[in-house]
Amino acid sequence: MSVNVAIIGAGVVGSAFLNQLKNLSSPIALNVVYLARNSKEALISKDYLPLDLQTYQTAPAQAVLPLAELAAFLHASPKPAVLIDNTSNAAIADFYPEFVKQGISIATPNKKAFSDKLAVWNEIFANSAAPGGGLVYHEATVGAGLPIIGSLRDLVATGDKVEKIEGILSGSLSYIFNALSTAEASTTKFSDVVKVAKELGYLEPDPRDDLNGMDFARKVTILARIAGFEVESPSAFLVDSLVPAPLEACASGAEFLQKLPDFDADFQKRKDDALAENKVLRYVGQIDFAANKVSVGIAKYDFDHPFASLKGSDNVVSIKTQRYPNPLIIQGAGAGAEVTAHGVLADALKIAERVAK
Amino acid sequence: MSVNVAIIGAGVVGSAFLNQLKNLSSPIALNVVYLARNSKEALISKDYLPLDLQTYQTAPAQAVLPLAELAAFLHASPKPAVLIDNTSNAAIADFYPEFVKQGISIATPNKKAFSDKLAVWNEIFANSAAPGGGLVYHEATVGAGLPIIGSLRDLVATGDKVEKIEGILSGSLSYIFNALSTAEASTTKFSDVVKVAKELGYLEPDPRDDLNGMDFARKVTILARIAGFEVESPSAFLVDSLVPAPLEACASGAEFLQKLPDFDADFQKRKDDALAENKVLRYVGQIDFAANKVSVGIAKYDFDHPFASLKGSDNVVSIKTQRYPNPLIIQGAGAGAEVTAHGVLADALKIAERVAK
Repeated sequence: MSVNVAIIGAGVVGSAFLNQLKNLSSPIALNVVYLARNSKEALISKDYLPLDLQTYQTAPAQAVLPLAELAAFLHASPKPAVLIDNTSNAAIADFYPEFVKQGISIATPNKKAFSDKLAVWNEIFANSAAPGGGLVYHEATVGAGLPIIGSLRDLVATGDKVEKIEGILSGSLSYIFNALSTAEASTTKFSDVVKVAKELGYLEPDPRDDLNGMDFARKVTILARIAGFEVESPSAFLVDSLVPAPLEACASGAEFLQKLPDFDADFQKRKDDALAENKVLRYVGQIDFAANKVSVGIAKYDFDHPFASLKGSDNVVSIKTQRYPNPLIIQGAGAGAEVTAHGVLADALKIAERVAK
Repeated sequence: MSVNVAIIGAGVVGSAFLNQLKNLSSPIALNVVYLARNSKEALISKDYLPLDLQTYQTAPAQAVLPLAELAAFLHASPKPAVLIDNTSNAAIADFYPEFVKQGISIATPNKKAFSDKLAVWNEIFANSAAPGGGLVYHEATVGAGLPIIGSLRDLVATGDKVEKIEGILSGSLSYIFNALSTAEASTTKFSDVVKVAKELGYLEPDPRDDLNGMDFARKVTILARIAGFEVESPSAFLVDSLVPAPLEACASGAEFLQKLPDFDADFQKRKDDALAENKVLRYVGQIDFAANKVSVGIAKYDFDHPFASLKGSDNVVSIKTQRYPNPLIIQGAGAGAEVTAHGVLADALKIAERVAK
């Protein structure tokens, strides 16, 4: 029993994935027949014999196949084909509907295709459900390897009704608020915490790319759609940016960081107000079916709420349904190469279990 | 695409399952061809045409098939066969290896087969892995519908190393300790909390059947085995019973409840001692690879530990691995007909996705 696998990307997540794959002991063989080790070079096994993963970094390479040619190569595979997209590339994501239409299954942490326009989402899953369509698994698009998407899909598939989803789905914003707003009064400054988060590598080169909440909003879009809330795009609902309006125009991340202390008093007041109500601030996504509302922004939680005791940069999601009026909660590291790669590999194995021949 | 399904049991979980199944909208048909609606009567579709689930309670029935005959009937099915065992019957569990050997897949909340002797576990999964073997899914044997077993299996399958699992895996014992031991000092009596738990329906007719920790130990056995800890049986490790030794001999549950107040002072002292260390008591299962130890009993947790803020009768499990040094935590209702049935149905769908023709 085996499948033929094409892998795109050998960066931080990609190389962790390849390392896990090399050490995999599975009853179903995942034979790698194509490996794009960067945006230009690929190893291609024209006869579909498994590539040697031990030497992928140094083996003689060819030019990467254009996506249409890659699809044709995989479509012609004598064994069922699986594409592993370990990039965050939009052009590859745009091609998912075509891959799936040609019977190629996909496992990926790439959020782009699933959090873009609703029409793209619908096309991907319609093509997947059509006769001969490939399977699509994307657990690692939300919370990395945490079992969030699979669990939510199981609830929906068995007929449960989602009432509310709340989540802290950004490692960097989790870290910032866990450090900033605690059950004990503190004068910890927002700008200082952002600076430390940057030094720890939790933030994008320009911190505004995390602080504007848009990456977070993409994850909320994905969960909302699975739960049955037809969100048109991540721009279709309220996202409360943490970038103070006057700093949106800063020319660089460095300039932004330099001017951020001017706004510390605002954040201090917000957390003091929360503390006066025995609450802490957290930056959360909310999908509320009763209120017919999706949003991303700051919310307040009681000290004994699971979100209040979150540690480090952990993610957490709380899923309230008809069957789980006391919510189902899943918590843990929601970013990082190893856990992301694990999420993708677990998906690849699930696909292999379903399609291998 | 369809599978042929045999269902045993239409009790509390079984009827919730049938209700969810009736309302299921799935691309793969789960055609019920055998339904044992109690221990004596079954509806049998000899020609493998789907039974009408709307009338299962009143339709003319036949005698249930002996297990060997049921296996032969399913083995001869023109479509892949799935057995749903919604009982907690040991005799049916004993027959799992044979069902699986004959290519019949199983989805079940019945813990018996998986928490009995290690040899039975090994036989079931060896038969499943052999060519032509049936698949075995049993998510609902631990934490009902919570995604614990699937998540743990994914981690192990992708090469992660489990370091420690801790869990509160009994709804009744969760309720009792959440009420008994809180961050605020209290004189809440153990015997009173047990009485309330009994009135709420959280306890077995004889409360000792929960309080002795043996049902809990079965769940810990299952998780340990998945994680790679070869536990011989639930009696092979330390289970700290909450039944005071002098009350083990009580002739009835009623007598036990009547005498339990004599031991309230012991529990009060234990929780006071914990409180003096700023900790609460919880009844937990622990699987510790570094210490090479599996146990069930009372442990102490800091106020801000996720186990300390548990509510009602929720279950929680914390999985610490090489990839998740800050543990992966899954929390929510771990008992109840609807969530248990959901766990079984989600498993049945996963089996169907893999074997349907």
